[in-house]
Amino acid sequence: MRAILDDKNLLLAEDALRIFINETSPKPIGVEEVDILDSLNRVSAEYVFSPIDLPPFSRSTVDGYAIIDSETPGEFTVIDKISIGEYKEIEIKDKEAVEVDTGSIIPENATAVIKVEETERKGDKIFVGRKVRFGENIGFIGSDIPKGFEILKPGEIIKAEKIALLASVGITKVKVFKRPKIYIITTGDELIEPGKPLQKGKIYESNSFYLYAKLKSEGYEIIGYTHVRDDKELIKEELLKGLDLADVVILTGGTSAGEKDFVHQVIRELGKIIVHGLKFKPGKPTILATVKGKPVIGLPGNIVSTVMITERVINKYLSIVAGKELTDEIKVKAILLNDAKADKNRYTYLPVYLFKKDEKYFALSIPFDSYMIGTFSVADGYIGLEPAEEHKEGEEVYVYLKRLDLRPTYIGEEEPKLLKLFSEFRKIPLGSYPALKALKYGIGDVIVISSLYDNSISGEYVYKRKILQNGNGEKIVGYHDWIGLSRMIQNSSIKLRYISLSPNFIGKATVIAPDTIISEGKEIGEEKLIIVCKDEYKSKLKTLS
Amino acid sequence: MRAILDDKNLLLAEDALRIFINETSPKPIGVEEVDILDSLNRVSAEYVFSPIDLPPFSRSTVDGYAIIDSETPGEFTVIDKISIGEYKEIEIKDKEAVEVDTGSIIPENATAVIKVEETERKGDKIFVGRKVRFGENIGFIGSDIPKGFEILKPGEIIKAEKIALLASVGITKVKVFKRPKIYIITTGDELIEPGKPLQKGKIYESNSFYLYAKLKSEGYEIIGYTHVRDDKELIKEELLKGLDLADVVILTGGTSAGEKDFVHQVIRELGKIIVHGLKFKPGKPTILATVKGKPVIGLPGNIVSTVMITERVINKYLSIVAGKELTDEIKVKAILLNDAKADKNRYTYLPVYLFKKDEKYFALSIPFDSYMIGTFSVADGYIGLEPAEEHKEGEEVYVYLKRLDLRPTYIGEEEPKLLKLFSEFRKIPLGSYPALKALKYGIGDVIVISSLYDNSISGEYVYKRKILQNGNGEKIVGYHDWIGLSRMIQNSSIKLRYISLSPNFIGKATVIAPDTIISEGKEIGEEKLIIVCKDEYKSKLKTLS
Repeated sequence: MRAILDDKNLLLAEDALRIFINETSPKPIGVEEVDILDSLNRVSAEYVFSPIDLPPFSRSTVDGYAIIDSETPGEFTVIDKISIGEYKEIEIKDKEAVEVDTGSIIPENATAVIKVEETERKGDKIFVGRKVRFGENIGFIGSDIPKGFEILKPGEIIKAEKIALLASVGITKVKVFKRPKIYIITTGDELIEPGKPLQKGKIYESNSFYLYAKLKSEGYEIIGYTHVRDDKELIKEELLKGLDLADVVILTGGTSAGEKDFVHQVIRELGKIIVHGLKFKPGKPTILATVKGKPVIGLPGNIVSTVMITERVINKYLSIVAGKELTDEIKVKAILLNDAKADKNRYTYLPVYLFKKDEKYFALSIPFDSYMIGTFSVADGYIGLEPAEEHKEGEEVYVYLKRLDLRPTYIGEEEPKLLKLFSEFRKIPLGSYPALKALKYGIGDVIVISSLYDNSISGEYVYKRKILQNGNGEKIVGYHDWIGLSRMIQNSSIKLRYISLSPNFIGKATVIAPDTIISEGKEIGEEKLIIVCKDEYKSKLKTLS
Repeated sequence: MRAILDDKNLLLAEDALRIFINETSPKPIGVEEVDILDSLNRVSAEYVFSPIDLPPFSRSTVDGYAIIDSETPGEFTVIDKISIGEYKEIEIKDKEAVEVDTGSIIPENATAVIKVEETERKGDKIFVGRKVRFGENIGFIGSDIPKGFEILKPGEIIKAEKIALLASVGITKVKVFKRPKIYIITTGDELIEPGKPLQKGKIYESNSFYLYAKLKSEGYEIIGYTHVRDDKELIKEELLKGLDLADVVILTGGTSAGEKDFVHQVIRELGKIIVHGLKFKPGKPTILATVKGKPVIGLPGNIVSTVMITERVINKYLSIVAGKELTDEIKVKAILLNDAKADKNRYTYLPVYLFKKDEKYFALSIPFDSYMIGTFSVADGYIGLEPAEEHKEGEEVYVYLKRLDLRPTYIGEEEPKLLKLFSEFRKIPLGSYPALKALKYGIGDVIVISSLYDNSISGEYVYKRKILQNGNGEKIVGYHDWIGLSRMIQNSSIKLRYISLSPNFIGKATVIAPDTIISEGKEIGEEKLIIVCKDEYKSKLKTLS
C-alpha cells in the first residue's frame, strides 16, 4: 500500500517552481547562428539593432513628381524620370520636376512630391494648382526606424514579421539559443501501446505521445523516448541513459510515495528530490529533482495530470532552459453558466465549454475527475481556481482558452435520434440543466430539455420517448444529476453522465433509461423532450417522425 | 506613369474574398494518413469517434479497498490485491475486501472503494467506520467518454492534447489533409538580396522571407521561391513553372495598373483577374486571379502591405485550401491613449503599442505609413478600423495582439543617455505626448517629459540639455509634433519622429536638436527632461551626472 502525499505538507506550484529554479539555476544550453529563413519560432539569443536607417534614403510615397515646394502653385518642366530602384544624380532647379514612382529615391534637393493625379501634364510640362507643403509625400530617410533601433531582443521567439524586418535591414543570420534536449521515460505495467489489443485492467499509454507532441510544439528537441516496465533497475538504467543524452529528463508514473513507486525511489537513490507533491489538481504526485546536476522531472502517470502539470508548471521551467522571455498569457473573461468549486486544499483546474455571443464569452464548467482525458481535451478551455475558491452561476471567471468550437451547438438531453440529426453540430448532451442555462443566457442553437426536469418550457418540437426499467434490485443506475430523469429517480445510486452507458449496467443493477437507449424493460413512464431551435435549423426537425 | 487604382471602384476585402471563393471554389488538395506522432499541427480530414468507452473498465479512483457498500460500516477480510494493470477474476462476498491501487480494475461485483486512509488494518482485517455510498470512489466504465464520442472533427488542427486522447483510445493513425503547395515569386528591380551591399535607390528584398516563414508557420509547403527582374517574359516563365508545381502561386510587386506593372499584365494575358484592388490600407494593389484553373495571388511590393494582406485576406483563402475549420480570433479590448483615424475610403490597420495594468489593456496608436515595416513589426498588435472610422483617446477598441512586450517601459522624449541607462527596457521614445498619457493612465515605468511641452510636471529627476540650431535657412527640421520641442519650433517644416535622425539633415536644412544629438550649432535655449520613475528603477537614475 502506498504512502500518502498529505495535502497539508505540499507546496503551491508557484512556490515549488521558485524553489526548483533556485536549486537548479536553469539557463540556456548554448547559442548557435542560423539563417533567418531557419529562425522561424527559434529563440533569439541576442539584441539585434538595425544597421541602417529605414528607409535607407528619402523616397516618394506616391507616384508623382519631385519638386521644390516653394515654387508651388505653378508650372514645372519635367526634366527626367527616376524609376523605382534607379539612382540618378539629379539636382533640380526651381521650376523643374522629376517623375518618380512610389518608392523611388528623390533628387537630393527635392523638398516635396506632388501626386500624379493632382497634376495636369502637357508634353514635358506639368501644372500644380495648389501650395504644396515642404516634405509632402516624402518618406524621409530613417522615418520608419533609425539606425541602431532595437529590432530583436534576447528571449524573443522569432516570427515571420521579424524575419521580414531582419531581411529589410539586410541581416541574413541571427544567433539563437540551442533547443533544449529532452528525454522522456514513461513507466507503468498497466500501460499498453496504442494499436495493440487492450487487455482487461490495462489502459493505453498516452503520456509519451502527449509529451512528445507538446514539447516538440514548444520548440524542444526530443532526443529519445521510451517506455519501461515497473522495474527499478530498468528505470535506473534508462534514467542514466537519458541523463547522458539530454539536458532534462522527464519521467511519468511511479511518482507517489509508495513501495511500488519506483520512479521516486530511483530519483532519491541517484540524486536529490527538491519538491515532492504539489497543491495542484489534477497533478499532485509531481517530483522536481536533480540527478547528476541535471533537472529530472517526475510527472504523475495520470494523463490529464501530465497535461496540466506540463502546461502550467514544467513548461515554465523549460522556457527558462530554452531562453524564452516571459510572455503574456491571454485569458478570456467568461460568465459562468453553473457553479464552480475548487478542491479545498489544492489549486484546481476545471475544463469548460465556451460559448460566444456579441463578443462575450460564457463558460459551462464540466463535471470532471483527473482521469478524464476525453472530457478535458474536448473542452474549449479551462479555469484555474485557488484552493477552496468558489464561483456561482453568473459570476465572471478567466478562462485559459484552447480553441473555441465555432459550430452551432446542440445542448441538453442525450437522445441518439436527435444527435444523429444534428451530427455536424457541436454536441453537449449533458442534460436539461445546462440546456436551461443556455436558454436563460440566449446561447446554443438546438436546446433539448426534458419535461421531467422542467415542464414549463415550450419549444418548436416535442420528441417523446418511453422510460423503461430493466431489473428490480435496490441499486438503481440512472441519469447523472444534471439530467431530467433524476427528478423521477431521485434515489438512483449511480448517476451516469451519458445515458448511452446504461446498457453496460444491465444485469448488474436496475437500469432506468429511455427506450431509445435500452431496448428491454418494463415501461414506467414517458418523457417529452422539448426542443428549442434557431430558425435556420427548424427544417431539420421536420424530418423527425 | 502608372494608371491609378481608384478607391471608388475597389472592393472591401471581405467582399473580394467572397467573390474570389465563389469563382475558384477552393477545397482541400487531398487526404493522407499519418502516424499520430506526425499529426501535430496537421489538419484532420475526418471525424474520429472513440472506438472504446473511456475508462475501458470500472476503476478505483483512489488507493483503497473494493467492497460492497451495503455492508458498511463494518469489518472486512482482505482476500486479495489487484495492482494497477492487473486483472483477476474475483467475486467478493459481503464481508470481503480487495486491496486496489488508484487505477486498478475493481472486482465485477464490488460497489464502492474505501480510501486506505479511512480504514484501520490489522493483519488481513480492515475496519470501515462509516456508511459508504454505492459507487463511491469508482470511475465507472465510460464515465469519461462513451464509445462513439466525437474526439476529432474535419478541419481541426491537431494539438498535443488530442494526440494524447487518440492514443488513450488506442488510435495510432489519423487522416489529414495534404499540405497546400505554394510557389512564391517576388518581382522588382529595386530589390537587393539581403547580405549584399545596398545600392543607392534600392532596398532589401524581404517579401519572400516573410511569405516563406509565414506560410510555413501556417503548415503550408513552400514548393519553391524565386526572385525575378521586372521582365515580362521572365515573370511569365516563372508563373508557368509555379503553376506546374504548386496549388497556389503568390507573386509580389507589379500589381498596380501601370505599364511597368508586369505582374498584372502577365496574369491578365494568361488567365483571368477576378479582383484588382482592395479598399484596404496598407495593401490596395492586390490581385486575386486564376490562371490555368489555379488560384494566383498578386501582392503589393510593399512589405507591410504583403504582411497585412497575407494575414487578413490571403490566409483565410489558404485556410480553405488547407481544409482548416474557421477559428475564433482572439482580440483584446484596449483603451486608446490617443486618437486613431482610418483612411476615409479604405479599411485601415494601425499598429499599436500595448500596456497591461490590472488585466486591462491600453493601446498607443503609432504614426504609420505603409512602408514602415520596422514600426509595424515592433508593435505589440494592431487595430482595424472601418473606412472613415475614428476613435478618440479613452475609447475602447479591439486589438489584434501579436505579442505583448512585458519589459518595463521607457516612454517619452528620446535622449541617448537615458535610453542607454534603461537599455533593457522596452523603449517608446516618441515624445512627451504619449508620456503624459502614460502618466494620466498610470502606465509605463520610466516616463520622460520635456519642460518645453509641459512645465507643470514634477518628477524624480531633471535632466538638462541645451538646444542647438545648425544652419539658418527657412526650412527647419525639428521634432515630430508629438515631441516637446515642437512648442518651441512651431514652424518646423519636417517633424522627425526620432530626433536621432537630425544629423541626416545638417547642411540640407536648419536643424534644431539637443546637444546630445547634434554636436554643433548655436545655443538657442535649454530643455529640461522631467523623469517620473517607479521606485525600483530610481537607483539607476543616481548614476546620472
